[in-house]
Amino acid sequence: MKALVYDGPRSVRVTNVPDPRIERPTDAIVRITTTNICGSDLHMYEGRTDMESGRVLGHENLGEVVEVGEACDVVRVGDFVVLPFNIACGHCANCEKGLTAFCLIANPDPQIAGAAYGFADMGPYNGGQAELLRVPWADFNCLVLPESAREQQLDYVMLADIFPTGWHATQLACVQPGETVAIYGAGPVGLMAALSCTLKGASEIFVVDRHPDRLAKAEEIGATPINDAEASPVDQIMEFTGGVGADRGCECVGYQAHDAQGQEHNNMTLNNLVKSVKFTGTIGVVGVFVPQDPGAPDDLAKQGEAVFDYGMFWFRGQTMGTGQCNVKNYNRQLMRLIETGKAEPSWVVSHELSLDEAPDGYAHFDRRDEGWTKVVLHPDGSR
Amino acid sequence: MKALVYDGPRSVRVTNVPDPRIERPTDAIVRITTTNICGSDLHMYEGRTDMESGRVLGHENLGEVVEVGEACDVVRVGDFVVLPFNIACGHCANCEKGLTAFCLIANPDPQIAGAAYGFADMGPYNGGQAELLRVPWADFNCLVLPESAREQQLDYVMLADIFPTGWHATQLACVQPGETVAIYGAGPVGLMAALSCTLKGASEIFVVDRHPDRLAKAEEIGATPINDAEASPVDQIMEFTGGVGADRGCECVGYQAHDAQGQEHNNMTLNNLVKSVKFTGTIGVVGVFVPQDPGAPDDLAKQGEAVFDYGMFWFRGQTMGTGQCNVKNYNRQLMRLIETGKAEPSWVVSHELSLDEAPDGYAHFDRRDEGWTKVVLHPDGSR
Amino acid sequence: MKALVYDGPRSVRVTNVPDPRIERPTDAIVRITTTNICGSDLHMYEGRTDMESGRVLGHENLGEVVEVGEACDVVRVGDFVVLPFNIACGHCANCEKGLTAFCLIANPDPQIAGAAYGFADMGPYNGGQAELLRVPWADFNCLVLPESAREQQLDYVMLADIFPTGWHATQLACVQPGETVAIYGAGPVGLMAALSCTLKGASEIFVVDRHPDRLAKAEEIGATPINDAEASPVDQIMEFTGGVGADRGCECVGYQAHDAQGQEHNNMTLNNLVKSVKFTGTIGVVGVFVPQDPGAPDDLAKQGEAVFDYGMFWFRGQTMGTGQCNVKNYNRQLMRLIETGKAEPSWVVSHELSLDEAPDGYAHFDRRDEGWTKVVLHPDGSR
Amino acid sequence: MKALVYDGPRSVRVTNVPDPRIERPTDAIVRITTTNICGSDLHMYEGRTDMESGRVLGHENLGEVVEVGEACDVVRVGDFVVLPFNIACGHCANCEKGLTAFCLIANPDPQIAGAAYGFADMGPYNGGQAELLRVPWADFNCLVLPESAREQQLDYVMLADIFPTGWHATQLACVQPGETVAIYGAGPVGLMAALSCTLKGASEIFVVDRHPDRLAKAEEIGATPINDAEASPVDQIMEFTGGVGADRGCECVGYQAHDAQGQEHNNMTLNNLVKSVKFTGTIGVVGVFVPQDPGAPDDLAKQGEAVFDYGMFWFRGQTMGTGQCNVKNYNRQLMRLIETGKAEPSWVVSHELSLDEAPDGYAHFDRRDEGWTKVVLHPDGSR
Repeated sequence: MKALVYDGPRSVRVTNVPDPRIERPTDAIVRITTTNICGSDLHMYEGRTDMESGRVLGHENLGEVVEVGEACDVVRVGDFVVLPFNIACGHCANCEKGLTAFCLIANPDPQIAGAAYGFADMGPYNGGQAELLRVPWADFNCLVLPESAREQQLDYVMLADIFPTGWHATQLACVQPGETVAIYGAGPVGLMAALSCTLKGASEIFVVDRHPDRLAKAEEIGATPINDAEASPVDQIMEFTGGVGADRGCECVGYQAHDAQGQEHNNMTLNNLVKSVKFTGTIGVVGVFVPQDPGAPDDLAKQGEAVFDYGMFWFRGQTMGTGQCNVKNYNRQLMRLIETGKAEPSWVVSHELSLDEAPDGYAHFDRRDEGWTKVVLHPDGSR
Repeated sequence: MKALVYDGPRSVRVTNVPDPRIERPTDAIVRITTTNICGSDLHMYEGRTDMESGRVLGHENLGEVVEVGEACDVVRVGDFVVLPFNIACGHCANCEKGLTAFCLIANPDPQIAGAAYGFADMGPYNGGQAELLRVPWADFNCLVLPESAREQQLDYVMLADIFPTGWHATQLACVQPGETVAIYGAGPVGLMAALSCTLKGASEIFVVDRHPDRLAKAEEIGATPINDAEASPVDQIMEFTGGVGADRGCECVGYQAHDAQGQEHNNMTLNNLVKSVKFTGTIGVVGVFVPQDPGAPDDLAKQGEAVFDYGMFWFRGQTMGTGQCNVKNYNRQLMRLIETGKAEPSWVVSHELSLDEAPDGYAHFDRRDEGWTKVVLHPDGSR
Repeated sequence: MKALVYDGPRSVRVTNVPDPRIERPTDAIVRITTTNICGSDLHMYEGRTDMESGRVLGHENLGEVVEVGEACDVVRVGDFVVLPFNIACGHCANCEKGLTAFCLIANPDPQIAGAAYGFADMGPYNGGQAELLRVPWADFNCLVLPESAREQQLDYVMLADIFPTGWHATQLACVQPGETVAIYGAGPVGLMAALSCTLKGASEIFVVDRHPDRLAKAEEIGATPINDAEASPVDQIMEFTGGVGADRGCECVGYQAHDAQGQEHNNMTLNNLVKSVKFTGTIGVVGVFVPQDPGAPDDLAKQGEAVFDYGMFWFRGQTMGTGQCNVKNYNRQLMRLIETGKAEPSWVVSHELSLDEAPDGYAHFDRRDEGWTKVVLHPDGSR
Repeated sequence: MKALVYDGPRSVRVTNVPDPRIERPTDAIVRITTTNICGSDLHMYEGRTDMESGRVLGHENLGEVVEVGEACDVVRVGDFVVLPFNIACGHCANCEKGLTAFCLIANPDPQIAGAAYGFADMGPYNGGQAELLRVPWADFNCLVLPESAREQQLDYVMLADIFPTGWHATQLACVQPGETVAIYGAGPVGLMAALSCTLKGASEIFVVDRHPDRLAKAEEIGATPINDAEASPVDQIMEFTGGVGADRGCECVGYQAHDAQGQEHNNMTLNNLVKSVKFTGTIGVVGVFVPQDPGAPDDLAKQGEAVFDYGMFWFRGQTMGTGQCNVKNYNRQLMRLIETGKAEPSWVVSHELSLDEAPDGYAHFDRRDEGWTKVVLHPDGSR
């Protein structure tokens, strides 16, 4: 089959690889019709991880089941399904508590809890930027979609990662109806966090970024754009909130946060959040941070360390939740919101490409080219 | 009346000050029978805060009501009461949510949420290491004790601060029955966190310190002592937990954490906790950290900044809650545990002194002299 | 001053009564500009309670503070405020937990927890269907509104009772985003429960009633009307939910639930809810039920007993939360939703009357006359 | 193999039945070493359910895995395991939320959510009062025990049902440290609820029953026995709690509750609980109630209906949670409490019998013969 593989820093290519097959009775094979390029793919694309050359990328996957192992008792050939980016066994001590992003079984490395498709350090699994994908523990990992989803794939594919991940930011931040929220980052995940806040009845949503096209997307759904290239985002949020700060904060940028000059500061959004959020406020961090970052510009960052305003964080009595999203905690309820027309996460999509066009899509998205908000691939030839 | 006042770094003295009086109709005056020296008093004692000379110290106070303002409708003269160290109005937006450590009214400084008796930056209120204490919003702040408390003051006085604060650490850490907990610090608060874990049904409690007398106190209630002067506390906890880490962690040391050589590292306990706690674990931090620390040994610490292993924290998907304890959230339920004999927090008390002996008590406690675990003062002449 | 007083079954009149005055230093006096007739006023109006003749009715009150006691330290003369229908002291064991509907101090009857303005069994307090109202513990009970509220009183007055009470139904029912909800009763509280569900991101909301004007109000905000005069409401909800039942249920009718022939059945909505809600679903009951109902049509109901399908309730593993709303838990966040234009609860208002017209308003509302959804009074002469 | 089968009202016998075998790749076969007679077995034994003749009884099962299907990736031959009484698939919409007692897949009857071993209406599965047991979805349903469990089977077998079920009562009742709890029923489940309260730090535990041997068991672990044959249990609890009522209540009796004369009243414990629990208190009901009870003494009870003091329940603002226990929510944490010596649930065991002696055990236990608190069977010939 055709698949997009990682070749080295800023190099990906579409090539032929062996078809995946049923390896265990609980597996299924899915023919991918829609798969996205994710912001976290860019960490790998830029060579800032230890991703192996030759691995297939892609962890935001949607398609049709074409084969199932004999132990599958719910998922059937012909089902239209979306896959959480996490691969989870469903029966370990973490999965049984809903902590599917930290499955103790799926990742063969005993030092790491959690696995994913086509993701550095997250197990040996291939990704779905390809014609076919093997799905382990298929009964547990497949979310079977309504038939109408075939005609609305751009919305439903967002259930694989960024819609639940944006939602997770607001869960970690404990966003309640009527509250104000400061979101750092208007990339796809930050925009999904903003969408989640609207669905949860937030009273005001501040979204910080410096790309006008992304801020415009935030404004489209009723958020207040905060351009941090124009003035201090903390000052702007303080002014909007009468000097109190937002009730809650969401970090949707991660360790490659950088200033307007392009200089990376892995503590930038964290420290701004501490100052943007009120005493006793809660902060959810879903932007990716890593324990080792050999390509980082400074020695602390290379070790995954950040100079954090801890004294202020503690003095303000804040709470911070972190980590990858347990997609299965949310995907079913968010599916219902799409099905009933309450949520349309596809508004972030800027480009739909064929699989062959994927390398070009990576390049544009990586450069944050104007208007390249979110790139969707269709490996089924429909594009 | 007689009171202990702060005079400057490592200098306190007992002197005569004007009696407090009813200033507002919601005030009460309490004759103090028992009041403790707290570990956080030592930050002030050592000159590591901007505490003003001449202020009366003491925020762990118990005694008898001797006068009430005309608006008090519950508290009566003769009631035996314990006072939360936080002073809270009871009706602001934070108090109505139970966030009494972050009262928006009691502290006249609009930049700071929260007030306390005799505490740097926490409003102009005098402390209770004195014969008399003015209690604002007395109906809200007084916890009326059973009559039997007069004979059991060493237990009940712990409701003012350290028992609820230790409990708060375990609440922020979300300790559940059956779980393992790593507690850094076996000072009075760390010991109370350990006691709280036993009351909540933890299966194993690791307490890290290097003072044998304190570790012995932890062992007395069934905790596993971890001497960090003997080997890496992280390694010891990892070995006890089969390489997984503890389910939950509690920080009960604060910004003056130091190594065996006495060198301060404000990030030491934090980074050890991240490594001692499992993926998805939760950490509660009640040790004090401050936004400005001019007396700190290094430039980052002077600004309240800590070099934090953020990448590891995020990768492990941990959550961290912080801040001063909202004592009123817990003091009534903990009072019942004392009353029914389920909890005896007085086991930490090592010394009972008269008010006149207080300066000597400060000196011993500040030096962590062997056996000086917790010092209790009786300004009523009973000692 | 002029006030509306209860005179006996189905008899109320506007008459002169003594002006209220500051009785305690924590009191305030409010000049009422807007006050509503509530569905629970009708229980009293119909003589189905032990309301004393001569008491002033009215517990949904909004107006301007005209006098404060000397102990008030936040509320000021000139503040525009809305009052929770519950009167709460702010410092008892229940109030400190946020259980302000069950204050242990405000009601002098030691057998009853909770007090309210102008309400049977809820203490000796007069209501606000009058020119002036005494507000006890004013700092705690007054919610100070933004200046803009003076021009938007119909929205803000709903914060006194029915908007928080409808919200409380959805809180007791644990409504989560994406879920389906069955609401029995499209009176003002049921409609507010439906509005609350829209604000919380419910995916589908079923509202059961048989008054077309009320069902139309529900439909206006996107709910699905279920007319129980046309077919079994349980069957209709089961059909809409594919035989599974709604995720959550809200009871907004109470003990005077009756069939299309007007026959009361105090168990009718309860048993329908058990059958309308899925296995493991949760039901919130804010419709009023009473321990004694001497005017009830049958002997069990006279004793407050209902023939409940308990076996089915248990077998389905459902949970049921009940009781009067702790208004202060929600009114500040709901105020923000009004202020930012996210919620407009005034859409339920059908009539604005002067105080003199109030008896006529009671009669129409009690008969559920077509179009009399919600009656608002303006005792300030503005109408 | 040998197994105990149901033969009709008050008739069970040990007979030969076909060995169970692996039917699906996710199955395992367990050789049962310990299995209990449960109070809910007695509903079937007495003919008060539609249990089919010839079915093997027994849902509290512990033993060693002797065969696994090819899809099992965690459970191994030789593992020593305890099985939750619920059979759950692990991947349906309820299982993924932890609602394993209400699995949507395991029970072939689409009207019923939930399945169990050898249980009326809970699917076609045989029980474990036999030499061998088939365990569906074995990776999900088996809790693998530490090796030391082989020597401590009487404690670990309680993880199959009654320890988690008693715990569930206290979870549904939201028991918090320091609180008082009223438990109706001192059978094995009521005793486990009392044990759970001690582990959770309750301050006082009232256990209501009228069998002196059972009340003595409650007293052994520090609970206060309330003999309802001597005086009204409500009055006794009110006196102990100063007229306020207990903070929380647990129902551990079920629909066959009866008075001292043996007359059944399915509402007896429910109405007593409403009166024994304070305003705003919470009640957890794990005693079994059924939607249809043809053998009931009165017409309402035959239909599963109870005359419930609903007016009082609502007026007091109480909450009630119900239903079968989701064992997997608790069994791992309770296992740790056993392993670390914090919990010894075997103290309820009164008799250990061979499988052949089981019919005799049923007869004694059903008659509540003095001293027959809990009967354990060993089908492995060890007894």
